[in-house]
Amino acid sequence: MQNFTFYSPTYFAFGKGQENNAGQYVKRFGGSKVLLHFGGGSVVRSGLLDRVKQSLTNEGIAYVELGGVQPNPRSGLVYEGIELCRKEGVDFVLAVGGGSTIDSSKAIAAGTVYDGDFWDFYQGKLVEKALPVGTILTIAAAGSEGSPDTVITHEDGMFKRGATGEALRPAFSILNPELTQTLPAFQTACGITDIMAHLFERYFTTTKEVEVTDRMIEGLLLTMIHEAPRVIADPDHYEARANIMWAGMMAHNNSCGVGRAQDWASHDMEHELSATYDVAHGAGLAVVFPAWMQYVYKNDIMRFAQLATRVWGVQMDFADPEKTALAGIHALRRFLTSIGMPGNFAELGAKAEDIPQMAKTACYGNGRGGSIGGFVALHEEDVVNIYNLML
Amino acid sequence: MQNFTFYSPTYFAFGKGQENNAGQYVKRFGGSKVLLHFGGGSVVRSGLLDRVKQSLTNEGIAYVELGGVQPNPRSGLVYEGIELCRKEGVDFVLAVGGGSTIDSSKAIAAGTVYDGDFWDFYQGKLVEKALPVGTILTIAAAGSEGSPDTVITHEDGMFKRGATGEALRPAFSILNPELTQTLPAFQTACGITDIMAHLFERYFTTTKEVEVTDRMIEGLLLTMIHEAPRVIADPDHYEARANIMWAGMMAHNNSCGVGRAQDWASHDMEHELSATYDVAHGAGLAVVFPAWMQYVYKNDIMRFAQLATRVWGVQMDFADPEKTALAGIHALRRFLTSIGMPGNFAELGAKAEDIPQMAKTACYGNGRGGSIGGFVALHEEDVVNIYNLML
Repeated sequence: MQNFTFYSPTYFAFGKGQENNAGQYVKRFGGSKVLLHFGGGSVVRSGLLDRVKQSLTNEGIAYVELGGVQPNPRSGLVYEGIELCRKEGVDFVLAVGGGSTIDSSKAIAAGTVYDGDFWDFYQGKLVEKALPVGTILTIAAAGSEGSPDTVITHEDGMFKRGATGEALRPAFSILNPELTQTLPAFQTACGITDIMAHLFERYFTTTKEVEVTDRMIEGLLLTMIHEAPRVIADPDHYEARANIMWAGMMAHNNSCGVGRAQDWASHDMEHELSATYDVAHGAGLAVVFPAWMQYVYKNDIMRFAQLATRVWGVQMDFADPEKTALAGIHALRRFLTSIGMPGNFAELGAKAEDIPQMAKTACYGNGRGGSIGGFVALHEEDVVNIYNLML
Repeated sequence: MQNFTFYSPTYFAFGKGQENNAGQYVKRFGGSKVLLHFGGGSVVRSGLLDRVKQSLTNEGIAYVELGGVQPNPRSGLVYEGIELCRKEGVDFVLAVGGGSTIDSSKAIAAGTVYDGDFWDFYQGKLVEKALPVGTILTIAAAGSEGSPDTVITHEDGMFKRGATGEALRPAFSILNPELTQTLPAFQTACGITDIMAHLFERYFTTTKEVEVTDRMIEGLLLTMIHEAPRVIADPDHYEARANIMWAGMMAHNNSCGVGRAQDWASHDMEHELSATYDVAHGAGLAVVFPAWMQYVYKNDIMRFAQLATRVWGVQMDFADPEKTALAGIHALRRFLTSIGMPGNFAELGAKAEDIPQMAKTACYGNGRGGSIGGFVALHEEDVVNIYNLML
């Protein structure tokens, strides 16, 4: 195991009705003037936004509003939010929505107290200071409610890039599984895929002797495999939603990713897909991940066999471990199909002709040095090969 | 799943050499005058204490020392520590040692800023304010390095009782597995048993639909079962020590105990044993836990069968799940014996004649209302029966 530090000072309030305490939590964590940041109509239509406003008003907390966050959130709205926060003297950003809204809120929170262009953070500058952020989560997926990370797409070039820094861990996050019950099955399945991807990206490592985090990751994957079909069959299944929601936070707050090299090449390759076609992040990951596994599994057959037996219930073939490894990848494909995820470029609406450009951007775009990934370092040619496996 | 809140704002620095940064962490978390609290000679003999002092001096941080913490830490030293902190104007308590030292430090930290008798907290008063505490852990066991809990034995009556409160989560905890390599096998095994007990106490619940925390607990138990024999066979096995150390923190910071009723009756029964005979806490738990399981398993045979199959690798007997449940309890007994833990009163040095008094104190002592436990409520007669199973 490698040396590491781990710091997750987010206050989590989990369960039914917790959003009605939003005002109290904003107060507890020092907010007096809030930017209420959200996406589209569902947060408004469902009455959630009104309840949150009421909760702020009850505590005597002032707020300004900024809606309009899109999936794959854009830089334009971040610039707008930063200007608004400065003009209005905002001291707390409250995200009401999913990963996109939270990521946009984090970008605004960091940018507001930074002298330069907020995009600097998305080109590798560590975020050391930001306004405190609170979140009221409406989809279990990105894990941004517990992570120090944010991903934004810059409209000038459509680069999708991430930033990080301890200052971006939310001060509090409200997780009410009921708020996710209105999600369509497709979005629910996209969230499930994203959560599983966060676990895979930590699981495939070159670090030896990481049994504790292996076992935790496997436990969270087993949870997803158990709960996903139940929630797809019955969107109102509170208990399944609850288990998925806590797993989604644990999958990405890094408590099970500490002390081990990780591999984020699949996320990097997916970011090119969603930047190019504006596809849902989870749907893109459903296409990317099995292809990536297919391409790299020979680098550590026993790790893939371990995943197959411990998580997918494949019988170990001791005479031919490679068969076991491949059966695990096949089980993942079957699972993703069963929850309604796309399996290839055509189902995603992606085009073979864009592969060279996407591979180039993934490896070299926006300051990258020519390769991605930690489990296996992938160069441009490898990325082309992997995209080709998705056709 | 039940509603819950979860807040774990401890900064963890894990790995080789991290103790040499102690001074920097004290500074980061606002300390300028430190109480250096520790136990016996090993911390001194090994040179650890000197290195910590050097690190404080390097940062210009003043300190006073208070050694002498015993296993099952006592109220007398806590009173002494509180007086010392007040007299010297201490603003940070730094624990160098195991769970006993950390628990004693937490008691001093809470008592120093409290007007009344610190023992009030151990009779049910929530700790809302305390000096910040830092820890440098020397044994993986109690989980106090990441928990909001502390257990102290009051010398007036030898009551062993716990206190809790968010203010008791350490500001930072330094976890260097190397520092645990000098531990004798018996103490190492006691720590392993304590960690597993913390997991069992969360696992046995009446709350339905808690797959995510079930799976995480099972993952941590599987880790312990894998690593324990390796570290007993080779005390210098850094990697096994590292996996156990992180598992020990995760087992008790409650990230896998949230949203579910828990059952702490075994800890309560063990506390009577260590208060009466001053036995090592883990050794007491090794005797108590299988007996408790034997007594209560019929209340939820399928939960015991689940543990047996998922964790102990027992084949499920679908015609007779009770057999599977019992095989799991048997596997635990065998495992504890294999790492050198006692299996009954005689091996522990406990006496049958003390059972009535211990059962009475467990159920009624120090303000308790006549029963303990959440999975199954145990009354005095039940506790007598369970102690009898340990003979």
